[in-house]
Amino acid sequence: MKDFKYYAPTEVIFGKNSEEQIPALLKKHGATKVLVHFGGGSAERSGLLPLIRTLLTQAGIPFRELGGVVPNPHLSKVREGIALCKKEGLDFILAVGGGSVIDSAKAISYGLCYDGDVWDLFCGKAELKAAAPVACVLTIPAAGSEMSEGCVITNDEDGQFLKRSCGGDPARCRFAVMNPERTYTLPAYQTACGITDMMMHTMERYFSHDDDMTITDALAEALLRTVMDLGPRVIANPNDYRLRAQVMWAGSLAHNDITGCGTTGDWGTHDLEHELSGMFDVAHGAGLAAIWGSWARYVRHENLTRFVQFAVNVMGVPNDFKDPDGTALRGIAKMEEFYRSIGMPTGITELIGREITNEEILEMAHKASNGGTSTLGNFKVLHEVDMVAIYCMAAKSK
Amino acid sequence: MKDFKYYAPTEVIFGKNSEEQIPALLKKHGATKVLVHFGGGSAERSGLLPLIRTLLTQAGIPFRELGGVVPNPHLSKVREGIALCKKEGLDFILAVGGGSVIDSAKAISYGLCYDGDVWDLFCGKAELKAAAPVACVLTIPAAGSEMSEGCVITNDEDGQFLKRSCGGDPARCRFAVMNPERTYTLPAYQTACGITDMMMHTMERYFSHDDDMTITDALAEALLRTVMDLGPRVIANPNDYRLRAQVMWAGSLAHNDITGCGTTGDWGTHDLEHELSGMFDVAHGAGLAAIWGSWARYVRHENLTRFVQFAVNVMGVPNDFKDPDGTALRGIAKMEEFYRSIGMPTGITELIGREITNEEILEMAHKASNGGTSTLGNFKVLHEVDMVAIYCMAAKSK
Repeated sequence: MKDFKYYAPTEVIFGKNSEEQIPALLKKHGATKVLVHFGGGSAERSGLLPLIRTLLTQAGIPFRELGGVVPNPHLSKVREGIALCKKEGLDFILAVGGGSVIDSAKAISYGLCYDGDVWDLFCGKAELKAAAPVACVLTIPAAGSEMSEGCVITNDEDGQFLKRSCGGDPARCRFAVMNPERTYTLPAYQTACGITDMMMHTMERYFSHDDDMTITDALAEALLRTVMDLGPRVIANPNDYRLRAQVMWAGSLAHNDITGCGTTGDWGTHDLEHELSGMFDVAHGAGLAAIWGSWARYVRHENLTRFVQFAVNVMGVPNDFKDPDGTALRGIAKMEEFYRSIGMPTGITELIGREITNEEILEMAHKASNGGTSTLGNFKVLHEVDMVAIYCMAAKSK
Repeated sequence: MKDFKYYAPTEVIFGKNSEEQIPALLKKHGATKVLVHFGGGSAERSGLLPLIRTLLTQAGIPFRELGGVVPNPHLSKVREGIALCKKEGLDFILAVGGGSVIDSAKAISYGLCYDGDVWDLFCGKAELKAAAPVACVLTIPAAGSEMSEGCVITNDEDGQFLKRSCGGDPARCRFAVMNPERTYTLPAYQTACGITDMMMHTMERYFSHDDDMTITDALAEALLRTVMDLGPRVIANPNDYRLRAQVMWAGSLAHNDITGCGTTGDWGTHDLEHELSGMFDVAHGAGLAAIWGSWARYVRHENLTRFVQFAVNVMGVPNDFKDPDGTALRGIAKMEEFYRSIGMPTGITELIGREITNEEILEMAHKASNGGTSTLGNFKVLHEVDMVAIYCMAAKSK
């Protein structure tokens, strides 16, 4: 069991009409002039942005707006946000949207407290020490960024589209407003991507060699089983408040570290996927589904017992005590079956709509390993050659 | 499903040697002059207090000490702490001990930010609006006060020994240092009391009419099953780090509200118990075990399905679909069997060592209902007459 720190200070306001509390929350958390940050037109069309404008105006809270955040959010937009905040003296960033918008807001907040180039923090040239306060109004449950210490940005400026993360305590949202009704209009595919992402946030923490924390396991397994039960039902009933609410809250629980206390997370699948969605601009959740099974089969012998536990406790596979590897493999296959049942790809061809080339695989592995100089993952430490092997397996997977 | 707020901002530092981080944590959270608050001699004998003195002195953090907190902590000690802090200009309270010490520290912190009599806040004459910062070094896992918003104090000044609670966001510890090794010396009986308390903190939230939050249920049920598995094992192996660590962390999870998101807690058993431990000065956990089964049998028809779910999902009772009441009753009985297996009483006679008198029962119900003017609980709202009935059932229970 690993020593751990658990720190999830975000104040979560969850439920119908929770948006009405935004002005009071902003004042409580010290905002004086706010950047309202968002993505495309959906927050406008849904009436959420107009509502927030009205609430802030009525409360006398000055604000500026910056929209246009894209999925796999771009560094160039982050720079625009930093410049706007500095020019207008904005001291608090309110993200309205999903993980991409929240991550873009976090990166802007880093830049406001760092004198150098903000990308330094993402490529390891400087350490994150402070950030301006950020909060969010969540509309897409998935990324978990509303309670996490993480943030991922894609560098769109040099044609390489490197996707890198930077996080820490300063990245925690001060508050998160979550109204499940705001997620009713989320299309089935994006809902499924979100469900995949919350499964993976839990599984990245679950596949660990620090596997003696029964209580953490029990919570993680309960979360995984419940999300698998809810997933197909919420896709079939997109306007069911109860189902949407539980999926929304599951996304936060999957990434606020409650399922990682005492374990060392792996994160290899996430890092391998970042290259995929960086290169092909596919949805992060779909990319995770496309690669996880190959990762799992490749690494399972590092701790086969863990995969057996996963198969039995999470996937409900009968334990064949004389054939642990068979049990483990059936658990992996059943997870892939689940992904396919909610419309997710379980191979790269289906993900990107054509066969990936060997050159593309080599390029992704080269980028993911920083030119062969670094590794990914903890459950099995992946070198460039391992990354090539996993991408090749996923290229052949159906 | 109820709208909810989830806010658990306490920074938890968990593991071996975690005490070494105390000076840095105090500085990070703004302490300049600290009250070190503790109970009896065990923190001294174990070497924990000497270690803290050394750490604070080395770090140049001035401090004063106040010991002598008793179980079911007293208002008179709270007043002593408030006076000492004011006299010495102490601005941060570090509780070293278990729930009683932390609650005493919280009450002192309330008093430092309230101009009137601190008891006003506990008897409903005034509202808690602010408190001085509190943190803790936890040595007894049970109460969950290290992450909760609650605090319970006994008024020892007028001979009535009224036990009342007062809480809210200001009552959250800034940080909690938890080293499972500090709990090795905790005797079996107190360990069992702690296990009962963490079971009950989860069950008070679980027995709710807002019973459509599958994800909250799944976490609560996982926690309850795991604690029941760990309980007898940790009592048999008090020096097992892995077991002690999980029990310690379970105590925080049981009371940081993660198992209460979207539900309305009951808290009837807790409130009925407060009169018992107020009158007889018994351990809170033992008092809960002595009364819960009677509460459960008395209220079960308010939502029998919930008791069936508890019996099946938590207690592992086979579901007799044609006899839900039988299934529910077997679940309650099996819970009581568990309590007895770890040495807890399941009736008042065993708890207090003699038969309770009718006069004592009437007095407790009269106090618990504030002279017949108020009610307890939510699963079933309990009036004075219901309280008498439950105490009578518990008086006859073995």
